[in-house]
Amino acid sequence: MTTTTPRTTPSSTNGEQGDPRLDAELAGIDVAHLQHVLLGHYPELRLAARTLMSDERFHQIPGQTLAEHRERVLAQLRLLAVEGDVHRSFPVRFGGAEDHGGFLARFEELTHADPSLQIKSGVQWGLFASAIYHLGTERNHDEFLADALSIAVPGAFAMTETGHGSDVAAIGTTATYDPATQEIVVHTPFRAAWKDYLGNAAQHGTAAVVFARLITAPPGGQAVDHGVHAVYVPIRDPQTGEFLPGVGGEDDGLKGGLNGIDNGRLWFDHVRVPRTNLLNRYGDIAEDGTYSSPIASPGRRFFTMLGTLVQGRVSLDGAAVTASRLGLTIAITYGNQRRQFASASPTEEVVLLDYAEHQRRLLPLLAETYAAGFAHEDLLAAFDDVFSGRNDTPETREDLETLAAALKPASTWHALRTLQTCREACGGAGFLAENRITGLRADMDVYATFEGDNTVLLQLVGKRLLTDYGKSFKHLDAVKVARLVAERAADAARFRTPLHRAVQTIADVGDARRSAGQLRETATQRSLLVDRVETMVAEIAQALRPAQKADPATAAALFNQHQHDLVEAARAHSELVQWESFTAALDRVTDPGTRQVLTWVRDLFGLTLVERHLAWYLVNGRLSAGRARTVTSYIDRLLTRLRPHAQDLVDAFGYGQEHLRAPIASGAEAERQDEARAYLKAQRASGDAPRPEKHVR
Amino acid sequence: MTTTTPRTTPSSTNGEQGDPRLDAELAGIDVAHLQHVLLGHYPELRLAARTLMSDERFHQIPGQTLAEHRERVLAQLRLLAVEGDVHRSFPVRFGGAEDHGGFLARFEELTHADPSLQIKSGVQWGLFASAIYHLGTERNHDEFLADALSIAVPGAFAMTETGHGSDVAAIGTTATYDPATQEIVVHTPFRAAWKDYLGNAAQHGTAAVVFARLITAPPGGQAVDHGVHAVYVPIRDPQTGEFLPGVGGEDDGLKGGLNGIDNGRLWFDHVRVPRTNLLNRYGDIAEDGTYSSPIASPGRRFFTMLGTLVQGRVSLDGAAVTASRLGLTIAITYGNQRRQFASASPTEEVVLLDYAEHQRRLLPLLAETYAAGFAHEDLLAAFDDVFSGRNDTPETREDLETLAAALKPASTWHALRTLQTCREACGGAGFLAENRITGLRADMDVYATFEGDNTVLLQLVGKRLLTDYGKSFKHLDAVKVARLVAERAADAARFRTPLHRAVQTIADVGDARRSAGQLRETATQRSLLVDRVETMVAEIAQALRPAQKADPATAAALFNQHQHDLVEAARAHSELVQWESFTAALDRVTDPGTRQVLTWVRDLFGLTLVERHLAWYLVNGRLSAGRARTVTSYIDRLLTRLRPHAQDLVDAFGYGQEHLRAPIASGAEAERQDEARAYLKAQRASGDAPRPEKHVR
Repeated sequence: MTTTTPRTTPSSTNGEQGDPRLDAELAGIDVAHLQHVLLGHYPELRLAARTLMSDERFHQIPGQTLAEHRERVLAQLRLLAVEGDVHRSFPVRFGGAEDHGGFLARFEELTHADPSLQIKSGVQWGLFASAIYHLGTERNHDEFLADALSIAVPGAFAMTETGHGSDVAAIGTTATYDPATQEIVVHTPFRAAWKDYLGNAAQHGTAAVVFARLITAPPGGQAVDHGVHAVYVPIRDPQTGEFLPGVGGEDDGLKGGLNGIDNGRLWFDHVRVPRTNLLNRYGDIAEDGTYSSPIASPGRRFFTMLGTLVQGRVSLDGAAVTASRLGLTIAITYGNQRRQFASASPTEEVVLLDYAEHQRRLLPLLAETYAAGFAHEDLLAAFDDVFSGRNDTPETREDLETLAAALKPASTWHALRTLQTCREACGGAGFLAENRITGLRADMDVYATFEGDNTVLLQLVGKRLLTDYGKSFKHLDAVKVARLVAERAADAARFRTPLHRAVQTIADVGDARRSAGQLRETATQRSLLVDRVETMVAEIAQALRPAQKADPATAAALFNQHQHDLVEAARAHSELVQWESFTAALDRVTDPGTRQVLTWVRDLFGLTLVERHLAWYLVNGRLSAGRARTVTSYIDRLLTRLRPHAQDLVDAFGYGQEHLRAPIASGAEAERQDEARAYLKAQRASGDAPRPEKHVR
Repeated sequence: MTTTTPRTTPSSTNGEQGDPRLDAELAGIDVAHLQHVLLGHYPELRLAARTLMSDERFHQIPGQTLAEHRERVLAQLRLLAVEGDVHRSFPVRFGGAEDHGGFLARFEELTHADPSLQIKSGVQWGLFASAIYHLGTERNHDEFLADALSIAVPGAFAMTETGHGSDVAAIGTTATYDPATQEIVVHTPFRAAWKDYLGNAAQHGTAAVVFARLITAPPGGQAVDHGVHAVYVPIRDPQTGEFLPGVGGEDDGLKGGLNGIDNGRLWFDHVRVPRTNLLNRYGDIAEDGTYSSPIASPGRRFFTMLGTLVQGRVSLDGAAVTASRLGLTIAITYGNQRRQFASASPTEEVVLLDYAEHQRRLLPLLAETYAAGFAHEDLLAAFDDVFSGRNDTPETREDLETLAAALKPASTWHALRTLQTCREACGGAGFLAENRITGLRADMDVYATFEGDNTVLLQLVGKRLLTDYGKSFKHLDAVKVARLVAERAADAARFRTPLHRAVQTIADVGDARRSAGQLRETATQRSLLVDRVETMVAEIAQALRPAQKADPATAAALFNQHQHDLVEAARAHSELVQWESFTAALDRVTDPGTRQVLTWVRDLFGLTLVERHLAWYLVNGRLSAGRARTVTSYIDRLLTRLRPHAQDLVDAFGYGQEHLRAPIASGAEAERQDEARAYLKAQRASGDAPRPEKHVR
């Protein structure tokens, strides 16, 4: 429904106060308003991109061969290069606007048309051109950037090797400076150091930004390995499409999805490029072979260079949200039309979404998709803050990287789970390629491991949480630390004593409704989620303490022993971040009826998290058994409340049929159901319907 | 390792007794012996089928077009019809052996080659020919069976309609008898009644077994709807491939997987077939239109007819186990060779499977795959017992259907989860089609909803559990029932009182090792799993009690309110069945070293289940917080113990490279890693390696 007269409520309450029955009367979604809130920081850019993507030249055609799909996506990139505002994040002198957030927002919207289009665009502009821009200096920009932006030179981003994926620091390719010819010699020393899984490498790329260990000797000195740097290397003759001398490779062939991209392998046999092909912003070689860098520490230099690549993770996070929204729009629309099994009435079948289990399967995923979407907008804002230079410090960069490392695993895994559930919720129809869900899922699959394997990223987040935890002790003297540790221990003991639990249990008894009321309070949800992250991190820190003084093998073993806990703590942190983003977003919803529904969605998300980790809350004495029961019953109540608003909640994602392109979400199912019901009703009315056998006997 | 001298231990202990350190020394897998145990009831048939499937003519070629893949699989079926022992379950006079279990075991082994081959074979022999056989009489067999078996007539099994999937009783297609011409008129009254998703319907089928409401009038009487029956209907001219007059249809086109099968839609416009085309085992029409059936009750007749189709579910259960085994063999072999990140040593990288999180992700899935495999062999035995006639009663049929309805959802969802985790565990390499995991996953996707939607099946299981629970009260008088209910209530209260928990907690304190010891006992695991199923069912029965006297709408609403609980109870039942099958199988492992390892695997499965539902055990007072903690720590210990045996555990599945056909599981990764390590070692030894920059400063 559309509320025409916005009623105001104090913005700080988030719908917590007042009589629940009144809340239910108030509840109703102003779809246009909610859609605007969801468009986030870049509404015009997103809407423009969606309009562009409604052009069928950009749409994936299921069932195309590998060769056809690759050619189609390359052609789409050429269209984009002309019409697609692809220069947006680049300097003004290259036609850009230095608008980094807007650049990513636009690219995320390519996902509706074909995820291959988003990723191939990401390879060309987000990785290849952006590496030239961010890792290079004006010298490199002048020489390489214009052709990269126009796709005169399709390019590969040659970082990953067959033998090393997420561990970039360990790559084997070398770039050795030869002062005699002032050239850099790029070389692949063994099979495991072949570059692999690179978009544009199998077919279209004529150049590559190659990551290699930069080796150079100062005049008269010994060769030094300066670690990973990027070098611009031509790889194919643009006329013939043949590899240049010394370059070779293989096609990665068919993949589980994203087959519009020509992923492949590359190797280099002492390939020589001019010294000036080194992208030299963070490390340079003088003519005589002297190395220089604005960053003294090789470790910090490495992470700074890699840090410029965070935009890939940000944009995967956005694409995953888009894919989840598409899947849920299709499945919930279908679930609102499809009837199956007569329940109360012998003649009237039930709409799928009226089944409690169907609600249980889809609506919590819808709530999590809302959370992931709001969190993504915050990530995009943080990204733009740093990359615009408005707030670019080592600390904000590190925060941005941690945030991206936390959110990308959460949203990409969520998309896979969501699309699979949506597929199953649509039954056999969901398995047909024409209804798009299986294709989206196949394309999204690799999002869980590329641009940083999700588990590896969560481990990074976990380490950062540990570091921060360590820092919070840094400014305290030894006595204070000891007291804090003792307090924590006492705290833990208190939670573990039977007495405490007994008291809490008694307090809970007989007032389940009050308990549920508490659970829907923002402060209660926050404290449950925050407490879990903090406690988990503190416990791991405590457990790892002996590692500080142990030999490397013992320390590594101890760390490994707690790897799972660390990953789980990072996951808990991601969930908390999503929940906080959602909660903050409620204040941007000015229509009170919409805010009431959204608050329920946020509550559903929060309580789904608590339910998911209920064992933890019970084991650690944070919830009594009695209160734990109310978590599930309050979720059930929320599902019932939200069910009437489910269609509005997906409609607010703002996709038209030109974006969905799924016949089962087109209204065809409702037509079929109506026709069947009308036929059977007319037959019953006519009196000449055959009598059921059981009525005859 | 292979133990040459089997040491005997009492078979009832399942390795529970004795010093754990001695157990660890004893542990070691006799791979050949374990492989034999896993081959189950039909070792020769399975091995013969695997040998046949090593012929590359049967192998899927990733990237084939829809048309090519369909043609290839049809050609494979023709090969099978000659060499494939496809008559095995059919009568001797048709070249068969009436060996129903062996028939399915052979077909399951087609999954290695291409799941499309298994399913298209299932359509032809398991559905189309089997419907003629099981739903027809000798009259039908003589007329139709030989051509169906030889694929002279490729056939569709036309049950599902666009508007009705799992709810077969509600289909709209009619088969009306016309005594004037002694013909049956098959008709599709509206669009939702089109037959849909039928293998062989889009292209290859020349006939179909069509399920329709059979309508006939006794002489001079009014037309009666006798409910769903099956009619044999020619649909295409075998010469031209064109639809016969009155028949039409559509191609379902590309699907998310299984594209070797030509699924499609069919409609019938008053198509006339001879009266004798009715498959008349369970219902017949005399020339004058009189209907007769050996089963008086229309409801029981319907379920009897549908019951003959249980073999489809049994065989999907087997295929899901096969797919999980293939995925895990690939991922664990790769995880044992692939190195990533240096941990303790600066020069030695760690093998993936040595990471605790990698073990946590893969080994519980391996344990569950073992459980699903043993459960499947028990299901196959139950199936053969009934279908061979050795033990064919209404009760054993019902038990078989319930067992299949419980296991098929568990194993098919497990396969999807397992294959996805395996894909991610292999990183980018796992996403390449050549490494097979994405293709297997895509093919398995629809197993979760076809031959009965998993959620619908679990609901059937749940209803059966409720019925059985009701029956257990049947023979008690009212006083006894009241007493039982009171006892249960008291029991529940006892579990909920703080005092009880306090006592239990105190008992647990300080002896975590003893608690863990208890958890590894068979009896403890069983009682935890059984208790959960029983309690959940009892609670739902209690909650649904008011429905018995309520009006239909109120009763339906109450049922819907507990639908999720019912599905969860059914899931708990499936898990218990799998666990019991695994436990029973331990007795078939005669080598003590192998049995020790397998017992750990069983423990890992059992404790994974307890951990999965830990919140339930805590909320319901079955485990104290202290003991709950030991569940996770004992799982950690089991993972460490099992890690050295992981390769043997997948090798025992018995697949050669000709079945795996995944380059990353071929040893190529180990070669690459060895080459890289040798290169770097030689470089270090030579002394002319460039010095790392950080060592220079």
